[in-house]
Amino acid sequence: MKNLNEVIPLKIIASGMALPEHKVYSSDLDLKLNKPNGFVQKRSGIEYRYHSDNNASQAKLAAEALHNTLQTHQILPDSIDLLISASAIAIQALPFSAAHILKESQLKAGTACFDINASCVSFVSALHVAGGLLATKQYKRIAIVSAEMASRGIDWSHQESSLIFGDGAACMVVERGNGQSGIVTHKQETYPEGLELCEIRAGGTRKNPRAGMDDSDFLFQMQGKALFKLTSSLIEEFTERVLSSANLTMPEIDIVIPHQASHLALEHIRKRLNISDERFMNIYRYRGNQVAASIPTALHEAIITDRFYGRDYVMLLGTAAGLSLSEMILKP
Amino acid sequence: MKNLNEVIPLKIIASGMALPEHKVYSSDLDLKLNKPNGFVQKRSGIEYRYHSDNNASQAKLAAEALHNTLQTHQILPDSIDLLISASAIAIQALPFSAAHILKESQLKAGTACFDINASCVSFVSALHVAGGLLATKQYKRIAIVSAEMASRGIDWSHQESSLIFGDGAACMVVERGNGQSGIVTHKQETYPEGLELCEIRAGGTRKNPRAGMDDSDFLFQMQGKALFKLTSSLIEEFTERVLSSANLTMPEIDIVIPHQASHLALEHIRKRLNISDERFMNIYRYRGNQVAASIPTALHEAIITDRFYGRDYVMLLGTAAGLSLSEMILKP
Repeated sequence: MKNLNEVIPLKIIASGMALPEHKVYSSDLDLKLNKPNGFVQKRSGIEYRYHSDNNASQAKLAAEALHNTLQTHQILPDSIDLLISASAIAIQALPFSAAHILKESQLKAGTACFDINASCVSFVSALHVAGGLLATKQYKRIAIVSAEMASRGIDWSHQESSLIFGDGAACMVVERGNGQSGIVTHKQETYPEGLELCEIRAGGTRKNPRAGMDDSDFLFQMQGKALFKLTSSLIEEFTERVLSSANLTMPEIDIVIPHQASHLALEHIRKRLNISDERFMNIYRYRGNQVAASIPTALHEAIITDRFYGRDYVMLLGTAAGLSLSEMILKP
Repeated sequence: MKNLNEVIPLKIIASGMALPEHKVYSSDLDLKLNKPNGFVQKRSGIEYRYHSDNNASQAKLAAEALHNTLQTHQILPDSIDLLISASAIAIQALPFSAAHILKESQLKAGTACFDINASCVSFVSALHVAGGLLATKQYKRIAIVSAEMASRGIDWSHQESSLIFGDGAACMVVERGNGQSGIVTHKQETYPEGLELCEIRAGGTRKNPRAGMDDSDFLFQMQGKALFKLTSSLIEEFTERVLSSANLTMPEIDIVIPHQASHLALEHIRKRLNISDERFMNIYRYRGNQVAASIPTALHEAIITDRFYGRDYVMLLGTAAGLSLSEMILKP
């Protein structure tokens, strides 16, 4: 590995999560979509995922994950000096989501906050940004929350994408630590030739009553085959660049925590990058694709099942609407 | 001032901007809104502002500001290793705006990018984040772009807010520099009791065809009086905290670059904080409120009119939907 003095000091001191109320079994979707029993589970690889009510609040879900984290680890809300919201989908066009989350939270009024968005890999970018801000010593304890309600944008007429999404939120609290843990390396690369392969067109200046829009512009659109092809053409060399920047090889990575894109994507990446099953966090069967909340939820799962602290190297890995590739190697 | 070794090294090496095609005089709005000649200019304090066509692209406007910056300063597009989009309003719900801007730009495919959102003070938060990431040495040259098309969300039936907005974009390229320039201090405080005083409710999970929405949810809503009251109650003590954290006083600040919220807000803040006219950048008369693009556009104006480099301390200052207060003191 490269020298310890090149590692960006960062310590995850607490993690937590939240799920909405409705546990949706694939058999429930068989009924909803008028499919034979077992169809959705076979196609999606999911046993159940969680969906929110259509009027549930994303800010409240995020605050729940934050409070779960603070309470489990007995962290005083007042000790958080920066809140970063790291979700792909915003609560509304203005103001930014972190202000909404702050309002629903026990954090003190006046807490600094902002949003970071890099679609499904937002949490990884936020972790890197947190590492940078901790290095400047402006902040000492940063909470990062990713909360997604993908169910609100599911196009039920599109079989491939409608089966895979689940809602949820996860939170990590980070500090500078003692320099023994941190970010060994992080790369994010965005290839905008894939910009239109994964999108929700409404929500900003592009599609609205003034510029023109229709209801389908509010739904998640995916071109699965083209997305698979573009990702496949990039992922191996990208991973090579990440590993070599840290002077590491894949067998030296103890645990890989991937974005839970879909069961086929997960299996494809695992095989392509030659990662053994037991070193690859896979929570997809009971969560589905939770958009930007997938990586921190899987990381939280790794932490509470004793697959994080005490390990040498943990890799976060994701591909995301953009098209973006993101990988980070952490020393836990 | 506090010690130079506590300054976060950061050097603005280039700046630029872009404006859309239509120059809208206040007299044009007198006609549009059926008001007597001179009414809009008197009420808004604006002679003209620029508005985009309803089908113009926010990503293209952002890329124009980026290219203006690169070309004026003869910076190779390939030398930019991170692009941060720092706008209040996104292009669409998914993917993030920076990927859209990257697609319209001359930057190389594979460039790292993400969005930062803290509504009207997004640029200030992005500058702090850039300082942090430059400190980690992961990136050497970062482009920050703020691009806004507020005209797309103007509620023409609401007199107070409809007169003040202008569109536009600005860009800054930053490096670590030699340590003689940088961020002396930065504070952002968010008070979510003011969350609903400035908002566009559609655009995310809160208002959409599934959760329910109507056309007014896509328009900018402002409660001017309550906003003024809340801001007034916070701004002086906040500024005191910022100045004292840097061990500076307001008379030691050479130039203050405020968010161009409105002519009344600008004048109120200037008087309240006891800043003389010539030290207070005011471009509002010819631009209006350009949302998150206001601060970098006014900073660019300060740079090209020789009011930035060579000065001791420059303060960026803004209040923003959230409600957020943000102030940063720079050593140019």
